[in-house]
Amino acid sequence: MHAQRPIGGQKPAVILFSGGLDSTTLARVAASQGFALHALTFSYGQRHAREVEAARALAGDLHFADHRTIEIDPAALRGSALTDSGASIPRCRSDAEIAGGPIPPTYVPARNTLFLAYALAWCETLGASDIFIGVNAIDYSGYPDCRPEFLRAFEALARLATRAGVEEGRDFRVHAPLIDRTKAEIIRWGTELGVDYSRTWSCYDPTAAQPPGGPGGRVGGPIHCGSCDSCLLRKRGFREAGVADPTSYAS
Amino acid sequence: MHAQRPIGGQKPAVILFSGGLDSTTLARVAASQGFALHALTFSYGQRHAREVEAARALAGDLHFADHRTIEIDPAALRGSALTDSGASIPRCRSDAEIAGGPIPPTYVPARNTLFLAYALAWCETLGASDIFIGVNAIDYSGYPDCRPEFLRAFEALARLATRAGVEEGRDFRVHAPLIDRTKAEIIRWGTELGVDYSRTWSCYDPTAAQPPGGPGGRVGGPIHCGSCDSCLLRKRGFREAGVADPTSYAS
Repeated sequence: MHAQRPIGGQKPAVILFSGGLDSTTLARVAASQGFALHALTFSYGQRHAREVEAARALAGDLHFADHRTIEIDPAALRGSALTDSGASIPRCRSDAEIAGGPIPPTYVPARNTLFLAYALAWCETLGASDIFIGVNAIDYSGYPDCRPEFLRAFEALARLATRAGVEEGRDFRVHAPLIDRTKAEIIRWGTELGVDYSRTWSCYDPTAAQPPGGPGGRVGGPIHCGSCDSCLLRKRGFREAGVADPTSYAS
Repeated sequence: MHAQRPIGGQKPAVILFSGGLDSTTLARVAASQGFALHALTFSYGQRHAREVEAARALAGDLHFADHRTIEIDPAALRGSALTDSGASIPRCRSDAEIAGGPIPPTYVPARNTLFLAYALAWCETLGASDIFIGVNAIDYSGYPDCRPEFLRAFEALARLATRAGVEEGRDFRVHAPLIDRTKAEIIRWGTELGVDYSRTWSCYDPTAAQPPGGPGGRVGGPIHCGSCDSCLLRKRGFREAGVADPTSYAS
């Protein structure tokens, strides 16, 4: 009843798209598999609101069939260094701490459950069965809702939760093609697929300097802080990938 | 780390609270079980926005520890007679149609998945393990995301999705004490617990007349349309319960 015809023979899919390095690579990977992508970006008072701007700017390059930005009441996601304005952003953790520590303070309660619930709602309206999410090896070593067992549990829930699951026996699938890839492997894969990483945003620090052209100025692109967890992972990823890093860092 | 001390020895719980007949009864049931209730009301462009007003008005009576109204972008839930402004609200279905038909057009894609995801996020911030949802026998005969197997799948997901589930082995529980109750049984239960049903709202029709005192006027309370599915179920509930119906209906 709500099924939508595939565009040009392509199957529709919903993709969680932040405008960051991972989800931009993910978009190219999903498109290369023949999906018509309906992209969902969340704005939830996260400190890197710059990421939402990057997502909007990148959406055009990526030829999405549709792109929606969903506002999430920040009060609903309190309890994380990414969403609590009073919490300090962790800095300068060693590589070992990043890769092997406990669940990091940037964990946002139930975030991926919420994001996937929104994706599922859109899937059902579109008549789609496929959701793409850009979780990767670093994420799933630290965040509970980035692990394969969480994604499989969400698929099981989706079959029981929806009209399509119950009436048509539709199997929803949560694709996470980056889940066993390091940042370096993701960067190499995206580079092969033609991703322009200079337009993606990773920095957690919203006070990172704007480029000389001012906000939105394109001289050198926006400037990453270079020292938050996310910037450290990004720097190391390019270094290990042997790919020139097009990012401007403040340090 | 995020655990909050129980208020006066009570365990905190999150309750999905619409201000309708079912969730108001649910609130009294949960309070009678000794929970300190953190109530979550969703405003999502549903036609019965009057329900959100009722929820706010009732929150004081019900002594919630906290009450939040979360705005959900209506575009995220397109594809239902409750959220599509162009869709007509089904009227005057027979009792047999209401009880035994296919999934009704008022089904909202993935709604309870989304609502429970928000509840889970709040639970984790509070250090709570318990969620109350007012699904009942009529709902679960029609809506996929009101069935016990859906609720059990969400509990399984919650254990995998959260820091508390992974680090502390916390078992989240979705309580649905009304799930095997008819509307009449719910009304009898609520009446025993002292619920004032004149203050609850059921009508799906936002054009239902305001009371003589105008919007917010208390003369006779707001007026239900009396002919939408939800009003028919409400009328029949009071009739079968043998409880005087305090509702003002237009027809």
